Parts: sequence; structure tokens; C-alpha cells
Amino acid sequence: MKHFSDRLIEAVKAKKSAVCAGLDPRLDKIPKFIRKKYFEKYAEFPLKAAAESILEFNKGIIDAVKDIAVCVKPQIAFYEMFGAEGIAVFIETIKYAKSQGLLTIADAKRGDIGSTAEAYARAFLGQVNFGTDFYSGEQTVFGADSMTVAPYFGYDGIKPFIEECKKNNAGIFILVKTSNKSSGDLQDLMVEKDEKNMAQPVFHIMARYVESWGADDIGEKGYSCVGVVVGATYPAQAAELRKLMPHTIFLVPGYGAQGAAAKDVSGCFNKDGLGAIINSSREICFAYEKYGKGEESYAEAARNAAIKMSDDINSVL
Amino acid sequence: MKHFSDRLIEAVKAKKSAVCAGLDPRLDKIPKFIRKKYFEKYAEFPLKAAAESILEFNKGIIDAVKDIAVCVKPQIAFYEMFGAEGIAVFIETIKYAKSQGLLTIADAKRGDIGSTAEAYARAFLGQVNFGTDFYSGEQTVFGADSMTVAPYFGYDGIKPFIEECKKNNAGIFILVKTSNKSSGDLQDLMVEKDEKNMAQPVFHIMARYVESWGADDIGEKGYSCVGVVVGATYPAQAAELRKLMPHTIFLVPGYGAQGAAAKDVSGCFNKDGLGAIINSSREICFAYEKYGKGEESYAEAARNAAIKMSDDINSVL
Repeated sequence: MKHFSDRLIEAVKAKKSAVCAGLDPRLDKIPKFIRKKYFEKYAEFPLKAAAESILEFNKGIIDAVKDIAVCVKPQIAFYEMFGAEGIAVFIETIKYAKSQGLLTIADAKRGDIGSTAEAYARAFLGQVNFGTDFYSGEQTVFGADSMTVAPYFGYDGIKPFIEECKKNNAGIFILVKTSNKSSGDLQDLMVEKDEKNMAQPVFHIMARYVESWGADDIGEKGYSCVGVVVGATYPAQAAELRKLMPHTIFLVPGYGAQGAAAKDVSGCFNKDGLGAIINSSREICFAYEKYGKGEESYAEAARNAAIKMSDDINSVL
Repeated sequence: MKHFSDRLIEAVKAKKSAVCAGLDPRLDKIPKFIRKKYFEKYAEFPLKAAAESILEFNKGIIDAVKDIAVCVKPQIAFYEMFGAEGIAVFIETIKYAKSQGLLTIADAKRGDIGSTAEAYARAFLGQVNFGTDFYSGEQTVFGADSMTVAPYFGYDGIKPFIEECKKNNAGIFILVKTSNKSSGDLQDLMVEKDEKNMAQPVFHIMARYVESWGADDIGEKGYSCVGVVVGATYPAQAAELRKLMPHTIFLVPGYGAQGAAAKDVSGCFNKDGLGAIINSSREICFAYEKYGKGEESYAEAARNAAIKMSDDINSVL
């Protein structure tokens, strides 16, 4: 299998699209005709009914956007909230998306000290083993192509993920400048100048770390396996970050429902129009709400929304 | 139900213990007689065999330490790595620990933007709902008394957790100064002085945030529902943090296997000997490895290790 960044860039070129479809299946927004089926079938077991509703919904979205989007990004919170049943469907969603030719980003934002990070990394990106006493094989659990990672622990909380990336041709996206309003509470703190650098915000320092952490694993297209999350809602900062991280793929949330437009994400790309994928969740998944053809048309609405989004982004590149 | 911090402080006083037993069930360290049973029973389904081994092991540890430890802290990575089966057993572990009179800390270190954080918070600390069209009730999913939270998103990634704490008399522990070697990469960065403060490290600023975020929800014993994670491996920093956060409960990892001794954790407590709980995972769970009575004695070994740890900590207070 090829390097994660090469697979991503090739998909971007082949599909002429930088769209990542976020699969955040908020249960109350899933069309009633889907939910009705499963809440009747599993009337005594609402966690199962919720999970099965999500899976059918997701498959509909995946089928609708698979030739438009380059990847899907299921946000695990909306699955984990339904317990083991939700996790089973999160895994099924990844498997189905891959079978349909999409790259997958497990949006889990995991992060912990080394030995624990290693457990997360193996589970999401690699294989887990079962000791050697009673079972010799390994098993893929989540099987994602890539995942999001939180950086508060510093490098030794990140290294196990990078090692698993190298073993499995997988990728990670580290939080650097997030799209939410209060992201500056920590990320914008101004760090004192040192011998090499002027005073700079925390998110610049994180960016320098990320670029260096990925430096020894660059794919053929010039990008490393260590990507970043940079919110589209901060276009000026995104443009600064692009300069600090020329070899880093940007995963960009915040387009659409969170308020950012195509012009706001243009600074996330390199000059060749590559190096970023733009996520939209609600505006794709729940496009049917504004589509005017009823909830049965949710997949068609999602497809049209993804096409519109792709065209919109391509128009500024 | 009482405020989380009051329940915790009352348990500390009643048991004369500040011990938190970390349930990090590394599969290859679970006694063979347990694993053999389940890997034979579920020979074709190793994820299930792993999960059931963990559950039996955990119940043995919980039974052994329930009158010594005030709480247990299962680290979700070691469960999640076995997929849906692992998550089911994580939930069972929390349920069983509560049934045995222990407080529970879901060590999940979740953190995300507001709407996603809300999903996590409801799942771990509160109840989830299923829309209102086909199922009107709510359901407890993880049912933990408290959980760990990562702060990279700033306040609007934390607020949904605090709101869920207030609704459910639950608690959170926010990462501030972690026990790992490279925690300083981000946490020790020196932030420029401003009008109010001299230059200070990031972890001081996070500490000031935490103390303020919890200020409007202080229990009868003087502690808020918003606690912190402070590594025992940084005793000087812990003592600084104790001064910055007088109303905040410290969850302190790093004792034992990670290298910190009782003298290193003494600065985490307030002058009255309260305000901190000290976690040990490996040195309790896998105490049988040094106990000399074989793996069948794993529960007895864990109990003795917990007693020794509790005495050790009490000796410095």
C-alpha cells in the first residue's frame, strides 16, 4: 500500500475535489423513515435502534458522495454515545467507506501518555494482538486510514501514533488551530521569544513541532504522514500556518455550518492547489433539510451539496 | 445524590485513603488461568475472549481493593482497543465498581468543539436521548461518576462537560501538567507577561482557567466539580499548582511504576491532607508479578499493594 499522503493527494487529483464528508450522524436529524424502521424492530433496545439507524443513514451518504468526496470523517462521539452498539457501527462505517473507495479519517482526537497512546494507535490504525499464549494472530479493529490526535502531552504522546502510521501507511491529523470560538484560550497564548524566534503564539509552536515530527516520513508527493487540523474559521492564521508547514496536509473543519466560506479556506492550500482537505458535516449529511424534496431525498441532497461544495472550493484555487 | 467532590472527600475520610486504583488491563499481563478460560470458550472470537478476560480480572481487582481504594480509574484505551466488545466491558467495569461502593473515573481524555463535547459528556456522565419521535426515554450509557478531559480547545470544549457535571453531580479532571517526560513540549512553554501576571508557563495559565471554571460549583467540603490531572513525576510544579488551585481536586498519576514516591505527591494535597487522589495502575493490578505466590494470588497481591500504597501516602500527610 502507498504512503497515506500519496493516496490522499492522488484521490484529490483523480476526483478533482478537496471535499471530506464529515459523518456526524446526529440521531434526531436522521430521516424519520430510517429511524422508524429500527426503533420498531428494536423497540426494547434503543441503543441498537440508534446505531442501526446511523449505519443505514451513513451508507446512504457514502453511496451518494463516493465519487465526489475524497474521504469521510466519522466523528466518534456521535457513535460512542450509543455505547458498544455505536462503536460497532463506527467500525462498520469505516469498513463500508473503504469498500467504496473512500479514504477514512477516524475523528477521535485521542491523546495520552506513551503506552496508552500506543494502545489507541494500534486500535485505530494498526492491528491489536492478544498475547501469544492462547491466540497467535493479530486483528484489525477500527481499520481507519487515518485519525485525529490531540497534542497536549507533547511528543511522547504523539510518537506511538507516528510509528503506527509508518507501519501501516496510515496518517494522523494533529490539532493545531481549531475552529471553535474559544480555541485561542490556549492556542493563541503568546510565548516569549527565545534565541531563535520572536514571540509567537502556541499554535505556531505546535505547527513547527508538527512539521518536524513528520520530516522523516515524506511521501512521493511531498507530504508527510503527520497532518494537522486547522479551522477554516481562522483564515489569517491558516495562511500563516501554511507557510510554517509546507509538507503537512491540512484537515480543515469549519466550512459551511460553522460559518467559513471557500475564500476562507483558500489559504490552507499550497500554491499548486493541493495540501488541504476541507470537511463539511452538517451541510452535506443534512442537506435534505433545505433541499425541498423531503427527507427521502437525503442522499440526493447530500450528493448535490457535496458537488456544490467541491465546485465552490475549486473556484478559489 | 451529593456533589461529586463531597462524595469523593467523604470516601477519602471514611477509608482513610487517597488511593485510586487504575484499571489498565494490559491483556498480556492478565493471569493465564483467566485468559485460558475465555480464549478456549471464544476460540474464534478473540476480541470477545480478550474483553471477557479483562472483565473477570477487573472484578477480582475491584473486590480486592474496594475497602482500600476510594475510586477506580479504567483507562479506556485498553478497552477500546478490543472494539465494541471492549467498550461493553468498560461499561460493565464501571457498573460493577459502583455496585461495590467505589467512585469511578472514566479515563477517556475526551475533548472537542462544543456540540461534539456535549455528545461525549452526555455519554460518559449523563444520559443520552433518542429524539422524541419513536422513543421518549433517556438512557445512561457509560454512567461514570467522573471522567478526564483534554483542554486543547479552550473553554467551549470544556463547558459542556461542566454542565453535565452540574446536572448529574458528576466531576471532570482536566489535564494540566501530565506525568510524561515530554509534557513540557507544550505545557511548560513560557507565556509572555501581561498587565496582571508575570511571564508564566502554559500549565499555570491552564490552572488559573480550571480554578475559575469551577468557581461557581463548589461543594460543601470546599472543592469544585472541576478537578485536574497533575503528574506526580513533577513534584515542584505540583506544589505550585496546589497554590493556584485551592478549590480543585487533583487526580495524580505517576506514583509507582512511573517513578514517583509518596514524598513526591505530598505537595498535591492541601494542608488538611485532603484535595488529592493518587493513582497507581500497574503496581496494583499486576502486583502479583513481584508477590511470589503465583498469578492465582493476583487479587490478594493487589490488595496488599493498595494497602501498602495507602499507608505510604498517609505517612507523608
